[in-house]
Amino acid sequence: MFTGMSAFPLTPMNETGVDEVAFIRLLKRITSAKVNSIAVLGSTGSYVYLSREERFRITQLAVEHSEGIPIVIGISALRTRDVLYLADDAQKLGAHGVLLSPVSYQPLTDMEVYSLYDMVASSLSVPLCVYDNPTTTHFQFSDELHGKIAALQQVRSIKIPGVPKEIDAAKERVKQLRAYLPSDVTIGVSGDPYGAVGLNAGCDAWYSVLGGLYPEICMKIARAALAGQSELADNLSNRLAPLWQMFLKYGSLRVIATIAEMLGLTDTPNLPLPLQSLNGAARLELETMLPILDN
Amino acid sequence: MFTGMSAFPLTPMNETGVDEVAFIRLLKRITSAKVNSIAVLGSTGSYVYLSREERFRITQLAVEHSEGIPIVIGISALRTRDVLYLADDAQKLGAHGVLLSPVSYQPLTDMEVYSLYDMVASSLSVPLCVYDNPTTTHFQFSDELHGKIAALQQVRSIKIPGVPKEIDAAKERVKQLRAYLPSDVTIGVSGDPYGAVGLNAGCDAWYSVLGGLYPEICMKIARAALAGQSELADNLSNRLAPLWQMFLKYGSLRVIATIAEMLGLTDTPNLPLPLQSLNGAARLELETMLPILDN
Repeated sequence: MFTGMSAFPLTPMNETGVDEVAFIRLLKRITSAKVNSIAVLGSTGSYVYLSREERFRITQLAVEHSEGIPIVIGISALRTRDVLYLADDAQKLGAHGVLLSPVSYQPLTDMEVYSLYDMVASSLSVPLCVYDNPTTTHFQFSDELHGKIAALQQVRSIKIPGVPKEIDAAKERVKQLRAYLPSDVTIGVSGDPYGAVGLNAGCDAWYSVLGGLYPEICMKIARAALAGQSELADNLSNRLAPLWQMFLKYGSLRVIATIAEMLGLTDTPNLPLPLQSLNGAARLELETMLPILDN
Repeated sequence: MFTGMSAFPLTPMNETGVDEVAFIRLLKRITSAKVNSIAVLGSTGSYVYLSREERFRITQLAVEHSEGIPIVIGISALRTRDVLYLADDAQKLGAHGVLLSPVSYQPLTDMEVYSLYDMVASSLSVPLCVYDNPTTTHFQFSDELHGKIAALQQVRSIKIPGVPKEIDAAKERVKQLRAYLPSDVTIGVSGDPYGAVGLNAGCDAWYSVLGGLYPEICMKIARAALAGQSELADNLSNRLAPLWQMFLKYGSLRVIATIAEMLGLTDTPNLPLPLQSLNGAARLELETMLPILDN
């Protein structure tokens, strides 16, 4: 389940609730493209902004509309108690795997993070992907800690925050981390600008934000890279360079949410306040670059 | 309300719920010391780890046991929708003021943070204190943004994250920020190691973690500083230097929670997992320094 291209859809919402119709519309685009898995309620799915009840309902819809594609559910929360509830909900509803980041308010220690994964992993009957995203969690995993957590039962993948841009350095980074991991734990790259180079460098999976809205494009890149056609994968990714620049500047969530609004796939707005999609000059700039997303 | 020494009590809890008896016990220590205000459900009160219902109940208890001392309630949440609910609850229950930090998962822009304060302030009938705590929110306020937010109706104080250790630099920092603020908006220092120097440098308030457990000691320091006895305030604070070192090393919440456990004021543990109080050598080290807290 934790190999190939995993699509991270938005959870379209406004201040009154989740837009279930739009969410199902996004799921259909994704399942039609026959992606390798769908990671619902990740950062792009604005998981931590939703109530337990809302997350329950979104999980239910995702499983119902999965068309046989594995569904991975983000179960992160500030409090271990809530993570355990969410893990339980996801499993009851038929999720195939879960994704867990060490979300924090008070900065966490290594021991606290290890204990969190230990408690959650030992409660699970489905596989878990460790979600390493220092931009949102402000927690820095060491490779040693990754290795310790990866040895826990049920842990089967690590979603890493990008790799070096240069292929040899990227290969070295993947090799370095892999040395700490059991052989059945995959490494998935995230940060879409690093998707192609990450796969070319030996990552097993690409956890993709763009894949949640443009799954066909991302499947092409992933298929090329995983078939050893690294130059083709690079070329396909490089075509999107202006978009990657926007991701790095404004955050991938705001950019993808804005495109979904522009395409009429969701209402405007579709993010939970205080988050806002792009406006003014940034929105106009993004609009001019939409043609690079036409196949 | 946003002047003098404001005490930030713990909300003692474990995985099954909040310990109301211990919370009331802590409140009694604080009210006996006749502090200037009590900031319930701040970072030290582990606000973001609690459900809306739990925060409602804690607010109710605090107002009920306030003994005439103004009660300020932390209303921060990841989502604006939830902040508005919490503001409403706090006001309905009789809180005298509210405290709001720009808690984030996705890093926030200046415009998003301004809009958050604008929406919340315009919904309020009680005064608001802006809570600037980059260690937990990862948001950096500029002085310009502080000025813009401080001009909003209902905003009456800013809780700043420390000041330079050296008194002249601290005075300069307070003067610099003050230039951006309306005259009815106070500045309160936080980060207990900076309490005495902050007040000596012209801050109007000290938002204190230690004040939630040792209110008498902190009132002595605050009274001295606010009466112009800056040397006395410094001396009283300097006596606690080993404790301040522990705060800086392990985080004030873990240190204070551990002391409350040691004193038997709460059960062990009293923090929400994944947070853990100190153990091993750090706990032993802290135990040896408890005598400096005897008057």
